[in-house]
Amino acid sequence: MPSTAKYAVIVAGGSGQRMGSKIPKQFLEMRGRPILMHTLQTFHDFPEKIKLVLVLPQPYIAKWKQLCRYYNFSIPVTLQAGGKSRFESVKKGLEIISGEGLVAIHDGVRPLVDHPLIRRSFQTAQKYNSAVATIPLKNSLRQITDTGSKSVERSQFRLVQTPQTFNLSLIKQAYGVREQAEFTDDASVWEAAGHPVTLYHGSEKNLKVTTIHDLAIAEMLLSFK
Amino acid sequence: MPSTAKYAVIVAGGSGQRMGSKIPKQFLEMRGRPILMHTLQTFHDFPEKIKLVLVLPQPYIAKWKQLCRYYNFSIPVTLQAGGKSRFESVKKGLEIISGEGLVAIHDGVRPLVDHPLIRRSFQTAQKYNSAVATIPLKNSLRQITDTGSKSVERSQFRLVQTPQTFNLSLIKQAYGVREQAEFTDDASVWEAAGHPVTLYHGSEKNLKVTTIHDLAIAEMLLSFK
Repeated sequence: MPSTAKYAVIVAGGSGQRMGSKIPKQFLEMRGRPILMHTLQTFHDFPEKIKLVLVLPQPYIAKWKQLCRYYNFSIPVTLQAGGKSRFESVKKGLEIISGEGLVAIHDGVRPLVDHPLIRRSFQTAQKYNSAVATIPLKNSLRQITDTGSKSVERSQFRLVQTPQTFNLSLIKQAYGVREQAEFTDDASVWEAAGHPVTLYHGSEKNLKVTTIHDLAIAEMLLSFK
Repeated sequence: MPSTAKYAVIVAGGSGQRMGSKIPKQFLEMRGRPILMHTLQTFHDFPEKIKLVLVLPQPYIAKWKQLCRYYNFSIPVTLQAGGKSRFESVKKGLEIISGEGLVAIHDGVRPLVDHPLIRRSFQTAQKYNSAVATIPLKNSLRQITDTGSKSVERSQFRLVQTPQTFNLSLIKQAYGVREQAEFTDDASVWEAAGHPVTLYHGSEKNLKVTTIHDLAIAEMLLSFK
């Protein structure tokens, strides 16, 4: 894919409330530097050039710049202030990208993303216009019903991760709508625009750091990376 | 619940193939002793007496006895040879329990089960005859369809764990059927017998150790226990 421009929108909108920490979770330190820096570094180090957009809540932008100085983190990243929801933040991140190509949308708090994953993501999207990372479920699954719950066949379901990578102009069009309650990720926005969603195999260790346990796990798994 | 007899059937049927190890995963060492010993110890140490049944594949029973001598592990456990499937193994584990009471069925490779979880499990089953540990999903969920996949509302689903605790005589009756493909856990067997399934809140860290990464994570989380 030498001629296709590659972008990544890294969304780091969390306020840290869920972690029970005053520091937003994307800024928490893991092996000596904030989670978010690990994520950005991995995209930056990908053998093919990926232009990076980082979406942060407006109140954290100054703090981020301060952290970059403190940790001597100087990779080129376009900063963008986020919106009230993940949907709004991704939309704003996409809006500042001009041109054509492919864009990987990735949660800032998934610092264990690796190059094979990024490669699969871009290769799949190059071919099918969309590429959504998923993994099978290891536990049984039950569905909540009006009267209680029922057993469902877990092999018919997939857990969704990021990167979710798309044809840039098509995903921008897809995000040109008003937010809906069912928009829990980029795939659901893409799907609502009438496009088929192509899945690719994610990674068990590509976890989303949302609790202090996750942070400890991520820190440990980093040694396997 | 002073008068209710309590049992636990610990199912450890794995052959270790998935872990890529010649040692079955329940025997792998975590903080100085096999995973399975951590699981049994936690049930044994519960403040109210729980009679333990351990279901192991027949070929591993001699090995287990050898491990017990080696690690000086001497808590009272009734050993039972398992069957070809999890269903068969649980069934055989239940069959050797006589009397009335409540029985917690638990995966041997969930060594991070703790007393609050066991307590909730027995208390819920005491009241409702069934108690199935579940946790909400942290990732988006997609359902595989004939034409691809579709986004589904993750809040309508729960990931199922163990312990799954039941009225002993009713679950024995429920297991008195032929195995069906949809029997992925005890709740699905219970449900097929026409009983309502009561859910209780499991624990994020009550993970099932099925990969070498899980083992490392479990080992680390043990320090939070």
